[in-house]
Amino acid sequence: MRTYLDCIPCFLRQSLEASRMVTSNETLHEIVLKKVMRYLQVISSFNNPPPELSKEVHAIVRNMLNCKDPYREVKKKSNEMANELYPRLEQIVEEAKDPFLMATKLAIIGNVIDFGAMNRFDVKDMINKAITENIDDNAYSRFKESIEKAQTILYLADNAGEIFFDKLLIKKFAEMGKRIVYAVKNNPIINDATIEDAKFAGIDKFAEVLPADEGQDKSAPGILLNYASSKFLNYFRNADVIIAKGQGNYESLSNSGREIFFLLVVKCPLVARDIRADIGKLILKVIE
Amino acid sequence: MRTYLDCIPCFLRQSLEASRMVTSNETLHEIVLKKVMRYLQVISSFNNPPPELSKEVHAIVRNMLNCKDPYREVKKKSNEMANELYPRLEQIVEEAKDPFLMATKLAIIGNVIDFGAMNRFDVKDMINKAITENIDDNAYSRFKESIEKAQTILYLADNAGEIFFDKLLIKKFAEMGKRIVYAVKNNPIINDATIEDAKFAGIDKFAEVLPADEGQDKSAPGILLNYASSKFLNYFRNADVIIAKGQGNYESLSNSGREIFFLLVVKCPLVARDIRADIGKLILKVIE
Repeated sequence: MRTYLDCIPCFLRQSLEASRMVTSNETLHEIVLKKVMRYLQVISSFNNPPPELSKEVHAIVRNMLNCKDPYREVKKKSNEMANELYPRLEQIVEEAKDPFLMATKLAIIGNVIDFGAMNRFDVKDMINKAITENIDDNAYSRFKESIEKAQTILYLADNAGEIFFDKLLIKKFAEMGKRIVYAVKNNPIINDATIEDAKFAGIDKFAEVLPADEGQDKSAPGILLNYASSKFLNYFRNADVIIAKGQGNYESLSNSGREIFFLLVVKCPLVARDIRADIGKLILKVIE
Repeated sequence: MRTYLDCIPCFLRQSLEASRMVTSNETLHEIVLKKVMRYLQVISSFNNPPPELSKEVHAIVRNMLNCKDPYREVKKKSNEMANELYPRLEQIVEEAKDPFLMATKLAIIGNVIDFGAMNRFDVKDMINKAITENIDDNAYSRFKESIEKAQTILYLADNAGEIFFDKLLIKKFAEMGKRIVYAVKNNPIINDATIEDAKFAGIDKFAEVLPADEGQDKSAPGILLNYASSKFLNYFRNADVIIAKGQGNYESLSNSGREIFFLLVVKCPLVARDIRADIGKLILKVIE
């Protein structure tokens, strides 16, 4: 998905949000915003997906404020909250009429824990939503069938906290005897999960945890194939099923040419338009 | 009220909105946004109120797109909608237990018709709100008392459409034998009312309609005293009561040192914080 001009105010709002997480010094916030505006001013093409620009914007924030991980505390809190919730989530899955469906829906719902796109959330409401709301029947049938046939599943993580919701589904895959590769960001970018988060969630017990990208300042809030590691690209080419979580991965990979199952909650009006669904909808969508 | 860094994304969002009203050419939208970012980048002080910066931002939009009034259609529609509603509004006032209170509340409610701050509204819901929601008792008592004692009332208009709601209150003032001066913007700025709008609403039958500012590109979405006409300033100094509608006038005049009755609906989180009220609240507030 290309970047729209509507993303510009959003990049600036996010830069301010991230800066405020690092320092309360308003002069520094102003310097960051002006530097981000200088960068956005010289963008010659908005044809790249939003995560490509977001990568640069957040690198400016980190470098100007000399902070490697502005969202560190936010991620920690998201993880702790989700960790506490996890036994209840497992119980909901096991008690469900169709545990695999419930694990899938909860993995989608987990995507709402995204401080990058919203500031308040009520996880309990969202769990009720998972129980009461439906996902696309056809897409789900195809998803389940593909998983059943698969040997290797490449699962692209999105945010900290959310990864505990992914774990529910990954455990189901493991019970089915699948080989799972769980791709996370190599370096901190917004509130996206890194190896440290995946280990904290214990996902490494069920899956090989792999950083998707390489190098400094190359992590983006949606996996960009031009910065991906060769190991990741190998799985991307050869895995039997690819699952990509969140808006960022949808933005960066919806035109990849590879069959991908996208699992996300729609939060942004531009993604809503692109994916043809309302904001707040639980999405399971396959794109070939 | 000073400008906050949070206003930057909002200025850009508004510039894009205004540009889209003029043309569907995305290259032009991009040029406008970049030019606005260039302007915001060199701002050396955010101590001025937001309408001061907004004045410059919208002048860039108008000049770059060679369009004197991007919101012309929006204002026309707001006026037409409010005009159609007007007989019903008059009836609500006359049938109310306290018609003066109802006219005051409806004048506040009218402030929700603001395409500059929100895109969707349901006027009928808002009328119910006027009937059911209360305003500050103490401020209202003081307001009524001041009006009763006053000979000359200076009333600072806000938006097109909204002016029909002002008319309800202005008619009450006229029935009380008051002299009313209704100050509007000299030139188009966002969806703010100009002389043409005030005449369309027939306010000139009850009040002297006066452009508050002078010169080219000097109109701001909140009256700035340093660009005000001498005639306006004379009324501003000598009127017995000043009423200022909307967030813009609150932002530009809340520290004027003059007693002003502010009538508005809170729409922006920064105004909400400054005025110490929740978003959506009906505000009648006196500042000395």
